[in-house]
Amino acid sequence: MELFTAIEQRRAIKHYDHNAPMSPNDFERMMNAILLSPTSYNIQHWRFIRVTDSNTRLKIKEAAWGQQQVEDAAELIILCADSQAWSDQPQRYWANADATTQSILLPMIASFYDGKPQLQRDEAMRSCGMAAQTLMLSAKALGYDTCPMIGFDDEAVADIIQLPKGHVISMMITIGKAAKAANVRGGQLPLSKVLRENTF
Amino acid sequence: MELFTAIEQRRAIKHYDHNAPMSPNDFERMMNAILLSPTSYNIQHWRFIRVTDSNTRLKIKEAAWGQQQVEDAAELIILCADSQAWSDQPQRYWANADATTQSILLPMIASFYDGKPQLQRDEAMRSCGMAAQTLMLSAKALGYDTCPMIGFDDEAVADIIQLPKGHVISMMITIGKAAKAANVRGGQLPLSKVLRENTF
Repeated sequence: MELFTAIEQRRAIKHYDHNAPMSPNDFERMMNAILLSPTSYNIQHWRFIRVTDSNTRLKIKEAAWGQQQVEDAAELIILCADSQAWSDQPQRYWANADATTQSILLPMIASFYDGKPQLQRDEAMRSCGMAAQTLMLSAKALGYDTCPMIGFDDEAVADIIQLPKGHVISMMITIGKAAKAANVRGGQLPLSKVLRENTF
Repeated sequence: MELFTAIEQRRAIKHYDHNAPMSPNDFERMMNAILLSPTSYNIQHWRFIRVTDSNTRLKIKEAAWGQQQVEDAAELIILCADSQAWSDQPQRYWANADATTQSILLPMIASFYDGKPQLQRDEAMRSCGMAAQTLMLSAKALGYDTCPMIGFDDEAVADIIQLPKGHVISMMITIGKAAKAANVRGGQLPLSKVLRENTF
């Protein structure tokens, strides 16, 4: 699908056909596309939980205030991040770089993130945001719809998925075949309201 | 351009042809695509600063530790967010919804964000992340390259762009015609390292 078509046609879908799975090939193609999303210093700190177990889905649905899409969607992906990935064998993120580049980059990564919990968290949200848009556009191009969700009790979901220490949840995304189309867009601000030149 | 081609060909480019501008049509098409990126409750809190003034570029370059791309890129966009947008005439985000929907949604928005500064900040980073990937893929499809940047003194940049109270900077992105191709990807983790099923 042409990129701009995917951008225009992507809408948040809240009603899915429970009997329409995502094919394994499509799932793999989508996931491999997500891995090409950028992360700062290539730390690739996103971690994706694919929820296939129906019991786990029901628990997450409860933590998401009963939203039916969590149960009905073909796929449910919880986008998390390891906020400490920068310090976990960072040489693997630059395995293809020469020794000189590595010797410059690796200490830069450490000094950039060390002791900065808010920056580590911001980075998780930013990187998961970029990955999320790649996911949603890829799903659209493959013939599926999606819904980005933050409406859930994140402590409850962290318990359910056994989120390790140092990790954060950014959002979750449902994926599947729409059972009901989206409404018209809510009310889009014109470009002039959100774009400024040089200063606010 | 086909979506997956754009995803595969997007790389962080750090050297630009200083004499190759982005056409006004391409800029407008890219910006209008960005506005179709999702935001929670459709709050559209992203705010984009387009830096066209060469003096301002030089100041930002200094705040970005001298990175030449800030000066040379055809366009420099600073992705910010109004973290209080949820409370600023939220009825405009749902102008097209019927009265019943509005009467349910508007109090939900207020109670979701009110008094939660970390959530407000997370939301800024997430939404700007999704918008950033839309920007970078759109630029790629239009024949330009980009680089997402967080390597700068954000307090200094906030001063330069006169960032208002209650707003945050998420990142900045340079856009232009590459003068030098990207190196091979640094070292990509396999899907099996970042995807888990049901729990960590």
